[in-house]
Amino acid sequence: MKKTLLISFVALATCSAAMAQVKEDFKPASTNQGGKEYPMVNSERIIRAQVTAPDATRVQFDISGVKYDLTKDENGVWTGETAPQDEGFHYYQIWVDGAATPDPNSLYYYGAGRWGSGIDIPAHDEDFYALKNVPHGDVREVYYYSQTNDAMRHCYIYTPASYDTDLNKRYPVLYLQHGGGESEHGWPQQGKTGLIMDNLIAAGLAEEFIIVMDNGSWARPRPAEGAAPQGNGQRRPGLPSGWADGFMNTLVNDIIPMVDARYRTIADREHRAMAGLSMGAMQTKAITMAKPEVFSKLGLFSGGTISVEEADNAPGFREAYDLVFVSYGSREVEKPRGGIDPGKTTADLKASGMNAHYYVSPETAHEWQTWRRSLYQFAQLLFK
Amino acid sequence: MKKTLLISFVALATCSAAMAQVKEDFKPASTNQGGKEYPMVNSERIIRAQVTAPDATRVQFDISGVKYDLTKDENGVWTGETAPQDEGFHYYQIWVDGAATPDPNSLYYYGAGRWGSGIDIPAHDEDFYALKNVPHGDVREVYYYSQTNDAMRHCYIYTPASYDTDLNKRYPVLYLQHGGGESEHGWPQQGKTGLIMDNLIAAGLAEEFIIVMDNGSWARPRPAEGAAPQGNGQRRPGLPSGWADGFMNTLVNDIIPMVDARYRTIADREHRAMAGLSMGAMQTKAITMAKPEVFSKLGLFSGGTISVEEADNAPGFREAYDLVFVSYGSREVEKPRGGIDPGKTTADLKASGMNAHYYVSPETAHEWQTWRRSLYQFAQLLFK
Repeated sequence: MKKTLLISFVALATCSAAMAQVKEDFKPASTNQGGKEYPMVNSERIIRAQVTAPDATRVQFDISGVKYDLTKDENGVWTGETAPQDEGFHYYQIWVDGAATPDPNSLYYYGAGRWGSGIDIPAHDEDFYALKNVPHGDVREVYYYSQTNDAMRHCYIYTPASYDTDLNKRYPVLYLQHGGGESEHGWPQQGKTGLIMDNLIAAGLAEEFIIVMDNGSWARPRPAEGAAPQGNGQRRPGLPSGWADGFMNTLVNDIIPMVDARYRTIADREHRAMAGLSMGAMQTKAITMAKPEVFSKLGLFSGGTISVEEADNAPGFREAYDLVFVSYGSREVEKPRGGIDPGKTTADLKASGMNAHYYVSPETAHEWQTWRRSLYQFAQLLFK
Repeated sequence: MKKTLLISFVALATCSAAMAQVKEDFKPASTNQGGKEYPMVNSERIIRAQVTAPDATRVQFDISGVKYDLTKDENGVWTGETAPQDEGFHYYQIWVDGAATPDPNSLYYYGAGRWGSGIDIPAHDEDFYALKNVPHGDVREVYYYSQTNDAMRHCYIYTPASYDTDLNKRYPVLYLQHGGGESEHGWPQQGKTGLIMDNLIAAGLAEEFIIVMDNGSWARPRPAEGAAPQGNGQRRPGLPSGWADGFMNTLVNDIIPMVDARYRTIADREHRAMAGLSMGAMQTKAITMAKPEVFSKLGLFSGGTISVEEADNAPGFREAYDLVFVSYGSREVEKPRGGIDPGKTTADLKASGMNAHYYVSPETAHEWQTWRRSLYQFAQLLFK
């Protein structure tokens, strides 16, 4: 242990000399495994990483699309720093002599199509998803049989703190979807859904409701060997064509009936909402427009808007929906996306008579801090 | 994709030529990340692993105390095989030029003091923990405040399938502890607690009860910098001296009252059991012997026995406990442990008048298959 501390000190001193401008207020990331000092983050949101690889010739820290070379010391410990990162959660990985591996120091998260490393950069507003001594709901791991898929499926369900003690109460339900390359693990883990809701409810800022977090990309047949990858415009594996339709059938025919049978829901459309991020927002838009008899509120996080024309052309849409929420990270909307300004589109929808809300997460991109903040905003509007 | 398949085929053909005796019926491990072909396991329980590391000079697959060298092909893909493994779950890691990393192909589990790779070797009796279309209980992630620790803590709680629909029913509770270097994640994940119970209950082989899986090593102050590691005879970091006492206070003063307040338990000692594996068994023994007013049944998996003398010398023990269950893996008891034969000790306890049961898991060691089987056996005796 003394040896490790000494090595760390030497590496740290070396770095400080080379980069005198970096603020030496690094702290271990909250996403580290217990007791692991590295990676660290300083108040400038610079990450300092460290990897032990005595026989390697090149070690890199790969985050936000950039690979940073680490520097080896005489003990085979590699250390280096990144450029300042955005606030919030980012996926990353380590490269050791051409092998892409998770960082053995970090906890692991599902995203970018794999279980791997993630790091949380402290945010000015992190209090809203902090673990506090308030009443906590449970996040339940749930297995159920899906007739649509003829398979057992897996989801997470948040029930508020009162659920297990106030047995006469029934609750509205939000169906909350992840993005492409992600899974049902995203919202409960890096999304911090349970903590966000517990804090909101404890502060009296949100109604109590159940949140169902299922997998929008599970229900796919494996492509035949040698078949061309199925395209949906995003060119990611794991996203079959027909993703919205396929998941809609699973959601409407299997998931919602299962949830209404197993949990004390208020099982009508007035008390049922759907939201999602990125691919999940596109699914939300497709499904809510096709099923006005099932839902009455919707949220699109970083994944599209609903125009006046779309609202007019979808049968029953205007009558069915009493809340439309659209959000983006500020870095996503600095330039109009394909000619569309989501703020203007949503303002037009509001002007046309719908209860439409638009939120922009400050200084974040297409990433989890945007979506944590989006849930925080959206949840305060729901079921009131 | 075609290129990857070709590489795999070449690597496979090379291996086959070199090791003609290996049965070519390898299948991807159930513990792999979705869509990952390697590591694979064959019917001889040999693992074939593959790692892409084009610039590395040495890559090893490290499992069950042995490091196996992998062989590099012209595309920088390293492949190799292990000796036959025991049935069930094993932790492992990859070494790339001196860097110990998780295998990017596997799911990650907490054990051996870190989150890292694990692999499940198919077992002849794996049906008892298979995911089936039976009624499933929920495994809940639960946060609560502990006065003893003045901190928020985290556990998992299994509630049986009927819990959310039969609102008039109350349930007995089993407190189930992990081993040293493990955490509250062990039983719900690699332990397969939920699936084991769902299958048992569906088959009518076990009563319905709640299972609380908490962290027996959390409640420790960080050692002061430079302080000698605290010893408890096991010399693992993360196991402070006083682990049984410290956890006993947390369990009796914080966890049990929290569970009895938040869930529909039968809150008396007749309906409360404790069990654990390895360190958790030692905690179970220490705590149940000290607290006969709290528990009435106990299980020790791979972590000790209770002798006639111990039963006689612990005030109230004989009167309080109507079930003592002791188990080991067969490889643990091939030779007597420190002169103690746990089978004889338990038979003597039974002969002295206590309801004592002894179980030996066939051809397994100090590992999860032993503990899955132990839970399967123990659960059938509980609360009947």
